Amino acid sequence: MKPQRLEAALGHGFGRPELLRQALTHRSFGSPHNERLEFLGDAILNCAVAGYLFQHFDDLKEGELSRLRASLVRQETLAEIARDLHLGDFLQLGEGELKSGGSRRPSILADAVEAIIGAIYVDAGFEAARKVIDLLYKPVVARINPDAAGKDPKTALQEILQGRRLPLPRYGLLATHGEAHVQEFEVECVIPDLDIRTTGTGSSRRIAEQQAAQRAIAGIKP
Amino acid sequence: MKPQRLEAALGHGFGRPELLRQALTHRSFGSPHNERLEFLGDAILNCAVAGYLFQHFDDLKEGELSRLRASLVRQETLAEIARDLHLGDFLQLGEGELKSGGSRRPSILADAVEAIIGAIYVDAGFEAARKVIDLLYKPVVARINPDAAGKDPKTALQEILQGRRLPLPRYGLLATHGEAHVQEFEVECVIPDLDIRTTGTGSSRRIAEQQAAQRAIAGIKP
Repeated sequence: MKPQRLEAALGHGFGRPELLRQALTHRSFGSPHNERLEFLGDAILNCAVAGYLFQHFDDLKEGELSRLRASLVRQETLAEIARDLHLGDFLQLGEGELKSGGSRRPSILADAVEAIIGAIYVDAGFEAARKVIDLLYKPVVARINPDAAGKDPKTALQEILQGRRLPLPRYGLLATHGEAHVQEFEVECVIPDLDIRTTGTGSSRRIAEQQAAQRAIAGIKP
Repeated sequence: MKPQRLEAALGHGFGRPELLRQALTHRSFGSPHNERLEFLGDAILNCAVAGYLFQHFDDLKEGELSRLRASLVRQETLAEIARDLHLGDFLQLGEGELKSGGSRRPSILADAVEAIIGAIYVDAGFEAARKVIDLLYKPVVARINPDAAGKDPKTALQEILQGRRLPLPRYGLLATHGEAHVQEFEVECVIPDLDIRTTGTGSSRRIAEQQAAQRAIAGIKP
Protein backbone atom coordinates (compact mmCIF):
# COMPACT_ATOMS: atom_id res chain seq x y z
CA MET A 1 0.00 0.00 0.00
CA LYS A 2 1.14 3.52 -0.71
CA PRO A 3 2.43 5.31 2.39
CA GLN A 4 0.55 8.44 1.26
CA ARG A 5 -2.68 6.75 2.32
CA LEU A 6 -1.26 6.17 5.75
CA GLU A 7 -0.03 9.77 5.95
CA ALA A 8 -3.54 10.94 5.11
CA ALA A 9 -5.02 8.79 7.86
CA LEU A 10 -2.45 10.14 10.33
CA GLY A 11 -3.05 13.72 9.28
CA HIS A 12 0.71 14.17 8.93
CA GLY A 13 2.75 14.40 5.74
CA PHE A 14 6.38 13.51 6.38
CA GLY A 15 9.09 15.98 5.43
CA ARG A 16 11.47 13.03 5.69
CA PRO A 17 9.55 10.02 4.32
CA GLU A 18 12.42 7.68 5.24
CA LEU A 19 11.39 8.12 8.87
CA LEU A 20 7.95 6.69 8.18
CA ARG A 21 9.54 3.84 6.24
CA GLN A 22 11.82 3.09 9.18
CA ALA A 23 8.88 3.21 11.60
CA LEU A 24 7.11 0.59 9.51
CA THR A 25 10.11 -1.74 9.36
CA HIS A 26 10.20 -4.60 11.82
CA ARG A 27 13.63 -5.79 12.89
CA SER A 28 13.02 -9.11 11.14
CA PHE A 29 13.18 -7.22 7.84
CA GLY A 30 16.61 -5.68 8.45
CA SER A 31 18.15 -2.33 9.36
CA PRO A 32 17.27 0.45 9.85
CA HIS A 33 14.31 -0.96 11.79
CA ASN A 34 11.85 0.66 14.15
CA GLU A 35 13.09 -0.25 17.62
CA ARG A 36 14.78 3.04 18.49
CA LEU A 37 11.82 5.02 17.14
CA GLU A 38 9.54 2.85 19.25
CA PHE A 39 11.51 3.75 22.39
CA LEU A 40 11.08 7.41 21.54
CA GLY A 41 7.42 7.14 20.53
CA ASP A 42 6.50 5.30 23.72
CA ALA A 43 7.84 8.23 25.75
CA ILE A 44 6.03 10.82 23.65
CA LEU A 45 2.77 8.90 23.82
CA ASN A 46 3.00 8.62 27.61
CA CYS A 47 3.69 12.31 27.83
CA ALA A 48 0.90 13.43 25.50
CA VAL A 49 -1.65 11.19 27.19
CA ALA A 50 -0.54 12.42 30.62
CA GLY A 51 -1.03 15.99 29.43
CA TYR A 52 -4.49 15.19 28.11
CA LEU A 53 -5.61 13.47 31.29
CA PHE A 54 -4.15 16.19 33.50
CA GLN A 55 -6.11 18.81 31.58
CA HIS A 56 -9.42 16.95 31.26
CA PHE A 57 -9.71 15.08 34.56
CA ASP A 58 -9.47 17.74 37.27
CA ASP A 59 -10.92 15.47 39.90
CA LEU A 60 -8.53 12.57 39.59
CA LYS A 61 -5.61 12.01 41.88
CA GLU A 62 -2.14 11.07 40.74
CA GLY A 63 -2.74 7.33 41.21
CA GLU A 64 -6.00 7.44 39.28
CA LEU A 65 -4.37 9.36 36.44
CA SER A 66 -1.60 6.74 36.30
CA ARG A 67 -4.05 3.87 36.10
CA LEU A 68 -6.11 5.57 33.45
CA ARG A 69 -3.04 6.30 31.37
CA ALA A 70 -1.82 2.71 31.66
CA SER A 71 -5.09 1.53 30.18
CA LEU A 72 -4.76 3.99 27.29
CA VAL A 73 -1.22 3.15 26.26
CA ARG A 74 -1.31 -0.61 26.73
CA GLN A 75 -0.68 -2.98 23.84
CA GLU A 76 -4.32 -3.89 23.18
CA THR A 77 -5.36 -0.24 22.81
CA LEU A 78 -2.46 0.49 20.47
CA ALA A 79 -3.14 -2.62 18.40
CA GLU A 80 -6.73 -1.47 18.03
CA ILE A 81 -5.53 1.90 16.75
CA ALA A 82 -3.18 0.08 14.37
CA ARG A 83 -6.07 -1.95 12.98
CA ASP A 84 -8.11 1.24 12.42
CA LEU A 85 -5.15 2.49 10.35
CA HIS A 86 -4.84 -0.84 8.46
CA LEU A 87 -1.23 -0.70 9.57
CA GLY A 88 -0.66 -4.38 8.84
CA ASP A 89 -0.82 -3.60 5.12
CA PHE A 90 2.06 -1.13 5.39
CA LEU A 91 4.51 -3.07 7.56
CA GLN A 92 7.81 -4.42 6.30
CA LEU A 93 8.44 -7.79 7.91
CA GLY A 94 10.97 -10.56 7.37
CA GLU A 95 9.76 -13.65 5.54
CA GLY A 96 9.37 -15.76 8.65
CA GLU A 97 7.28 -13.14 10.44
CA LEU A 98 5.22 -12.58 7.33
CA LYS A 99 4.35 -16.25 7.00
CA SER A 100 3.50 -16.66 10.67
CA GLY A 101 1.01 -13.77 10.54
CA GLY A 102 3.25 -11.12 12.09
CA SER A 103 1.33 -8.30 10.43
CA ARG A 104 -1.66 -9.13 12.63
CA ARG A 105 0.26 -9.73 15.87
CA PRO A 106 -0.77 -7.17 18.51
CA SER A 107 2.78 -6.63 19.79
CA ILE A 108 4.13 -5.86 16.31
CA LEU A 109 1.20 -3.57 15.53
CA ALA A 110 1.46 -1.71 18.84
CA ASP A 111 5.21 -1.23 18.47
CA ALA A 112 4.70 0.18 14.98
CA VAL A 113 2.17 2.74 16.25
CA GLU A 114 4.69 3.92 18.84
CA ALA A 115 7.44 4.02 16.23
CA ILE A 116 5.26 6.16 13.95
CA ILE A 117 4.70 8.60 16.81
CA GLY A 118 8.47 8.70 17.38
CA ALA A 119 9.03 9.30 13.67
CA ILE A 120 6.61 12.23 13.64
CA TYR A 121 8.40 13.75 16.63
CA VAL A 122 11.75 13.53 14.84
CA ASP A 123 10.18 14.82 11.63
CA ALA A 124 8.23 17.77 13.02
CA GLY A 125 8.46 18.07 16.83
CA PHE A 126 6.31 17.45 19.86
CA GLU A 127 3.25 19.46 18.89
CA ALA A 128 2.94 17.64 15.57
CA ALA A 129 3.16 14.27 17.35
CA ARG A 130 0.63 15.39 19.97
CA LYS A 131 -1.87 16.37 17.29
CA VAL A 132 -1.62 12.98 15.60
CA ILE A 133 -2.03 11.25 18.98
CA ASP A 134 -5.14 13.35 19.64
CA LEU A 135 -6.56 12.24 16.30
CA LEU A 136 -5.74 8.55 16.76
CA TYR A 137 -7.15 8.52 20.27
CA LYS A 138 -10.42 10.24 19.48
CA PRO A 139 -12.45 7.01 19.41
CA VAL A 140 -10.62 5.62 22.44
CA VAL A 141 -11.07 8.79 24.48
CA ALA A 142 -14.75 9.02 23.65
CA ARG A 143 -15.19 5.79 25.58
CA ILE A 144 -13.36 6.86 28.74
CA ASN A 145 -14.03 10.57 28.77
CA PRO A 146 -17.72 11.26 29.15
CA ASP A 147 -17.16 14.97 28.48
CA ALA A 148 -15.63 14.24 25.10
CA ALA A 149 -18.60 12.05 24.21
CA GLY A 150 -21.04 14.66 25.51
CA LYS A 151 -22.15 12.39 28.34
CA ASP A 152 -22.16 12.87 32.08
CA PRO A 153 -20.11 10.38 34.12
CA LYS A 154 -23.11 8.54 35.63
CA THR A 155 -24.58 7.86 32.19
CA ALA A 156 -21.19 6.85 30.81
CA LEU A 157 -20.57 4.48 33.71
CA GLN A 158 -23.99 2.92 33.28
CA GLU A 159 -23.30 2.32 29.60
CA ILE A 160 -19.91 0.79 30.24
CA LEU A 161 -21.44 -1.66 32.75
CA GLN A 162 -24.37 -2.48 30.46
CA GLY A 163 -21.89 -3.17 27.67
CA ARG A 164 -20.32 -5.78 29.92
CA ARG A 165 -23.69 -7.13 31.04
CA LEU A 166 -22.97 -6.17 34.63
CA PRO A 167 -25.49 -4.84 37.19
CA LEU A 168 -25.75 -1.08 37.60
CA PRO A 169 -23.63 0.70 40.23
CA ARG A 170 -25.05 1.38 43.65
CA TYR A 171 -24.83 4.95 44.97
CA GLY A 172 -25.14 5.63 48.68
CA LEU A 173 -25.04 8.72 50.86
CA LEU A 174 -22.19 8.48 53.35
CA ALA A 175 -22.47 11.83 55.13
CA THR A 176 -23.57 15.43 54.91
CA HIS A 177 -21.53 18.23 56.39
CA GLY A 178 -22.29 21.86 57.17
CA GLU A 179 -25.42 23.97 57.58
CA ALA A 180 -28.44 23.51 55.33
CA HIS A 181 -27.56 26.22 52.77
CA VAL A 182 -23.86 25.33 52.52
CA GLN A 183 -24.17 21.60 52.81
CA GLU A 184 -21.60 19.24 51.37
CA PHE A 185 -22.60 15.73 50.40
CA GLU A 186 -20.35 12.71 50.51
CA VAL A 187 -21.47 9.69 48.53
CA GLU A 188 -20.08 6.36 47.45
CA CYS A 189 -20.35 4.44 44.21
CA VAL A 190 -20.07 0.68 44.51
CA ILE A 191 -19.64 -1.88 41.72
CA PRO A 192 -19.33 -5.22 43.54
CA ASP A 193 -18.61 -7.29 40.40
CA LEU A 194 -15.54 -5.17 39.61
CA ASP A 195 -14.51 -4.77 43.23
CA ILE A 196 -14.72 -0.99 42.84
CA ARG A 197 -15.74 1.46 45.53
CA THR A 198 -15.18 5.17 45.02
CA THR A 199 -16.36 8.28 46.82
CA GLY A 200 -17.28 11.76 45.69
CA THR A 201 -18.17 15.04 47.34
CA GLY A 202 -20.12 18.04 46.15
CA SER A 203 -22.64 20.74 46.97
CA SER A 204 -25.45 18.47 45.83
CA ARG A 205 -25.97 14.77 45.98
CA ARG A 206 -26.03 14.62 42.20
CA ILE A 207 -22.71 16.46 41.83
CA ALA A 208 -21.13 14.15 44.42
CA GLU A 209 -22.43 11.10 42.56
CA GLN A 210 -21.05 12.36 39.25
CA GLN A 211 -17.62 12.71 40.84
CA ALA A 212 -17.80 9.21 42.32
CA ALA A 213 -18.91 7.83 38.93
CA GLN A 214 -16.02 9.60 37.18
CA ARG A 215 -13.58 8.01 39.60
CA ALA A 216 -15.17 4.60 39.11
CA ILE A 217 -14.70 4.90 35.33
CA ALA A 218 -11.05 5.66 35.89
CA GLY A 219 -10.75 2.52 38.00
CA ILE A 220 -12.25 0.11 35.47
CA LYS A 221 -9.73 -2.07 33.69
CA PRO A 222 -10.43 -1.96 29.97
CA MET B 1 13.10 32.57 49.77
CA LYS B 2 11.60 34.58 46.93
CA PRO B 3 10.35 32.39 44.08
CA GLN B 4 11.87 34.89 41.61
CA ARG B 5 15.29 33.53 42.51
CA LEU B 6 14.13 30.05 41.65
CA GLU B 7 12.60 31.26 38.39
CA ALA B 8 15.93 32.83 37.48
CA ALA B 9 17.75 29.56 38.17
CA LEU B 10 15.21 27.67 36.06
CA GLY B 11 15.43 30.18 33.23
CA HIS B 12 11.63 30.35 33.18
CA GLY B 13 9.41 33.15 34.44
CA PHE B 14 5.92 31.88 35.20
CA GLY B 15 2.94 33.52 33.51
CA ARG B 16 0.84 31.87 36.21
CA PRO B 17 2.96 32.00 39.38
CA GLU B 18 0.36 29.94 41.27
CA LEU B 19 1.55 26.93 39.29
CA LEU B 20 5.05 27.27 40.68
CA ARG B 21 3.62 27.69 44.17
CA GLN B 22 1.60 24.51 43.73
CA ALA B 23 4.64 22.63 42.42
CA LEU B 24 6.52 23.60 45.58
CA THR B 25 3.72 22.50 47.93
CA HIS B 26 4.02 19.06 49.48
CA ARG B 27 0.78 17.29 50.28
CA SER B 28 1.59 17.54 54.01
CA PHE B 29 1.07 21.31 53.71
CA GLY B 30 -2.43 21.10 52.24
CA SER B 31 -4.20 21.53 48.92
CA PRO B 32 -3.55 22.33 46.14
CA HIS B 33 -0.39 20.24 46.42
CA ASN B 34 2.07 19.02 43.83
CA GLU B 35 1.10 15.38 43.25
CA ARG B 36 -0.82 15.80 40.01
CA LEU B 37 1.87 18.12 38.62
CA GLU B 38 4.45 15.50 39.57
CA PHE B 39 2.58 12.87 37.54
CA LEU B 40 2.64 15.20 34.56
CA GLY B 41 6.25 16.32 35.02
CA ASP B 42 7.50 12.75 35.29
CA ALA B 43 6.03 12.00 31.86
CA ILE B 44 7.49 15.16 30.31
CA LEU B 45 10.90 14.49 31.79
CA ASN B 46 10.91 10.93 30.45
CA CYS B 47 9.91 12.21 27.05
CA ALA B 48 12.44 15.03 26.86
CA VAL B 49 15.28 12.78 28.03
CA ALA B 50 14.25 10.10 25.53
CA GLY B 51 14.37 12.72 22.77
CA TYR B 52 17.80 13.89 23.87
CA LEU B 53 19.24 10.39 24.01
CA PHE B 54 17.68 9.39 20.69
CA GLN B 55 19.28 12.37 19.04
CA HIS B 56 22.72 12.20 20.66
CA PHE B 57 23.35 8.46 20.93
CA ASP B 58 23.00 7.10 17.40
CA ASP B 59 24.81 3.90 18.25
CA LEU B 60 22.69 2.76 21.15
CA LYS B 61 19.97 0.19 20.85
CA GLU B 62 16.54 0.51 22.39
CA GLY B 63 17.49 -1.42 25.53
CA GLU B 64 20.62 0.66 26.08
CA LEU B 65 18.67 3.90 25.62
CA SER B 66 16.14 2.69 28.21
CA ARG B 67 18.82 1.89 30.76
CA LEU B 68 20.57 5.17 30.21
CA ARG B 69 17.34 7.10 30.61
CA ALA B 70 16.45 5.22 33.78
CA SER B 71 19.74 6.36 35.31
CA LEU B 72 19.04 9.97 34.32
CA VAL B 73 15.52 10.25 35.72
CA ARG B 74 15.97 8.25 38.91
CA GLN B 75 15.39 9.83 42.30
CA GLU B 76 19.06 10.37 43.20
CA THR B 77 19.74 12.31 39.99
CA LEU B 78 16.67 14.48 40.48
CA ALA B 79 17.50 15.10 44.15
CA GLU B 80 20.95 16.24 43.05
CA ILE B 81 19.38 18.70 40.62
CA ALA B 82 17.08 19.89 43.41
CA ARG B 83 20.06 20.56 45.67
CA ASP B 84 21.77 22.55 42.90
CA LEU B 85 18.60 24.69 42.82
CA HIS B 86 18.47 24.99 46.64
CA LEU B 87 14.94 23.72 46.26
CA GLY B 88 14.64 22.79 49.92
CA ASP B 89 14.53 26.49 50.78
CA PHE B 90 11.47 27.03 48.60
CA LEU B 91 9.32 24.05 49.58
CA GLN B 92 6.08 24.33 51.51
CA LEU B 93 5.85 21.42 53.93
CA GLY B 94 3.55 20.53 56.79
CA GLU B 95 4.93 20.98 60.30
CA GLY B 96 5.65 17.31 60.84
CA GLU B 97 7.61 16.98 57.62
CA LEU B 98 9.43 20.22 58.31
CA LYS B 99 10.59 19.04 61.73
CA SER B 100 11.69 15.64 60.49
CA GLY B 101 13.91 17.18 57.79
CA GLY B 102 11.54 16.69 54.87
CA SER B 103 13.10 19.54 52.91
CA ARG B 104 16.26 17.46 52.57
CA ARG B 105 14.59 14.13 51.84
CA PRO B 106 15.55 12.89 48.35
CA SER B 107 12.03 11.65 47.52
CA ILE B 108 10.43 15.01 48.36
CA LEU B 109 13.11 16.92 46.46
CA ALA B 110 12.88 14.68 43.39
CA ASP B 111 9.08 14.89 43.33
CA ALA B 112 9.26 18.69 43.51
CA VAL B 113 11.62 18.83 40.51
CA GLU B 114 9.16 16.76 38.49
CA ALA B 115 6.26 18.92 39.66
CA ILE B 116 8.10 22.06 38.56
CA ILE B 117 8.61 20.54 35.11
CA GLY B 118 4.90 19.73 35.00
CA ALA B 119 4.06 23.29 36.06
CA ILE B 120 6.21 24.75 33.29
CA TYR B 121 4.46 22.52 30.76
CA VAL B 122 1.05 23.74 31.90
CA ASP B 123 2.31 27.32 32.00
CA ALA B 124 4.05 27.47 28.63
CA GLY B 125 4.02 24.15 26.76
CA PHE B 126 6.37 21.33 25.92
CA GLU B 127 9.19 23.32 24.33
CA ALA B 128 9.47 25.57 27.37
CA ALA B 129 9.67 22.54 29.66
CA ARG B 130 12.23 20.87 27.42
CA LYS B 131 14.46 23.94 27.52
CA VAL B 132 14.42 24.01 31.31
CA ILE B 133 15.17 20.27 31.42
CA ASP B 134 18.13 20.84 29.07
CA LEU B 135 19.44 23.52 31.39
CA LEU B 136 18.98 21.49 34.58
CA TYR B 137 20.57 18.42 33.06
CA LYS B 138 23.64 20.16 31.63
CA PRO B 139 25.93 19.06 34.47
CA VAL B 140 24.42 15.57 34.54
CA VAL B 141 24.68 15.09 30.80
CA ALA B 142 28.28 16.29 30.71
CA ARG B 143 29.13 13.22 32.78
CA ILE B 144 27.40 10.68 30.59
CA ASN B 145 27.66 12.29 27.16
CA PRO B 146 31.27 12.64 26.11
CA ASP B 147 30.24 14.73 23.09
CA ALA B 148 28.58 17.29 25.32
CA ALA B 149 31.71 17.52 27.41
CA GLY B 150 33.90 17.71 24.31
CA LYS B 151 35.47 14.35 25.06
CA ASP B 152 35.67 11.16 23.08
CA PRO B 153 34.05 8.08 24.64
CA LYS B 154 37.31 6.27 25.48
CA THR B 155 38.64 9.26 27.37
CA ALA B 156 35.31 9.77 29.12
CA LEU B 157 35.12 6.12 30.15
CA GLN B 158 38.66 6.22 31.48
CA GLU B 159 37.84 9.26 33.60
CA ILE B 160 34.68 7.70 34.98
CA LEU B 161 36.62 4.60 36.04
CA GLN B 162 39.48 6.66 37.49
CA GLY B 163 36.91 8.65 39.47
CA ARG B 164 35.77 5.40 41.04
CA ARG B 165 39.35 4.18 41.55
CA LEU B 166 38.75 1.23 39.24
CA PRO B 167 41.27 -0.30 36.79
CA LEU B 168 41.13 0.85 33.17
CA PRO B 169 38.97 -1.02 30.65
CA ARG B 170 40.51 -3.72 28.50
CA TYR B 171 39.99 -3.50 24.73
CA GLY B 172 40.45 -6.55 22.56
CA LEU B 173 40.10 -7.29 18.85
CA LEU B 174 37.45 -9.94 18.26
CA ALA B 175 37.45 -10.17 14.47
CA THR B 176 38.13 -8.40 11.21
CA HIS B 177 35.86 -8.80 8.23
CA GLY B 178 36.24 -7.97 4.55
CA GLU B 179 39.14 -7.16 2.22
CA ALA B 180 42.04 -5.02 3.34
CA HIS B 181 40.74 -1.68 2.02
CA VAL B 182 37.13 -2.15 3.20
CA GLN B 183 37.88 -3.93 6.45
CA GLU B 184 35.52 -3.83 9.37
CA PHE B 185 36.85 -4.29 12.88
CA GLU B 186 34.97 -5.83 15.74
CA VAL B 187 36.32 -5.14 19.22
CA GLU B 188 35.24 -5.67 22.80
CA CYS B 189 35.54 -3.45 25.85
CA VAL B 190 35.72 -5.29 29.18
CA ILE B 191 35.42 -3.82 32.69
CA PRO B 192 35.58 -6.85 35.00
CA ASP B 193 34.91 -4.89 38.21
CA LEU B 194 31.58 -3.65 36.86
CA ASP B 195 30.73 -6.89 35.08
CA ILE B 196 30.50 -4.98 31.78
CA ARG B 197 31.40 -6.34 28.37
CA THR B 198 30.39 -4.44 25.27
CA THR B 199 31.32 -4.70 21.61
CA GLY B 200 31.79 -2.15 18.85
CA THR B 201 32.37 -2.25 15.11
CA GLY B 202 33.88 0.26 12.73
CA SER B 203 36.11 0.87 9.73
CA SER B 204 39.10 1.27 12.04
CA ARG B 205 40.05 -0.32 15.32
CA ARG B 206 39.90 3.06 17.00
CA ILE B 207 36.37 3.80 15.75
CA ALA B 208 35.22 0.35 16.89
CA GLU B 209 36.78 0.94 20.32
CA GLN B 210 35.05 4.31 20.67
CA GLN B 211 31.71 2.66 19.98
CA ALA B 212 32.38 -0.09 22.51
CA ALA B 213 33.43 2.55 25.08
CA GLN B 214 30.27 4.55 24.43
CA ARG B 215 28.17 1.47 25.05
CA ALA B 216 30.09 0.69 28.22
CA ILE B 217 29.39 4.21 29.55
CA ALA B 218 25.70 3.63 28.88
CA GLY B 219 25.86 0.43 30.90
CA ILE B 220 27.47 1.93 34.02
CA LYS B 221 25.08 2.41 36.89
CA PRO B 222 25.49 5.93 38.25
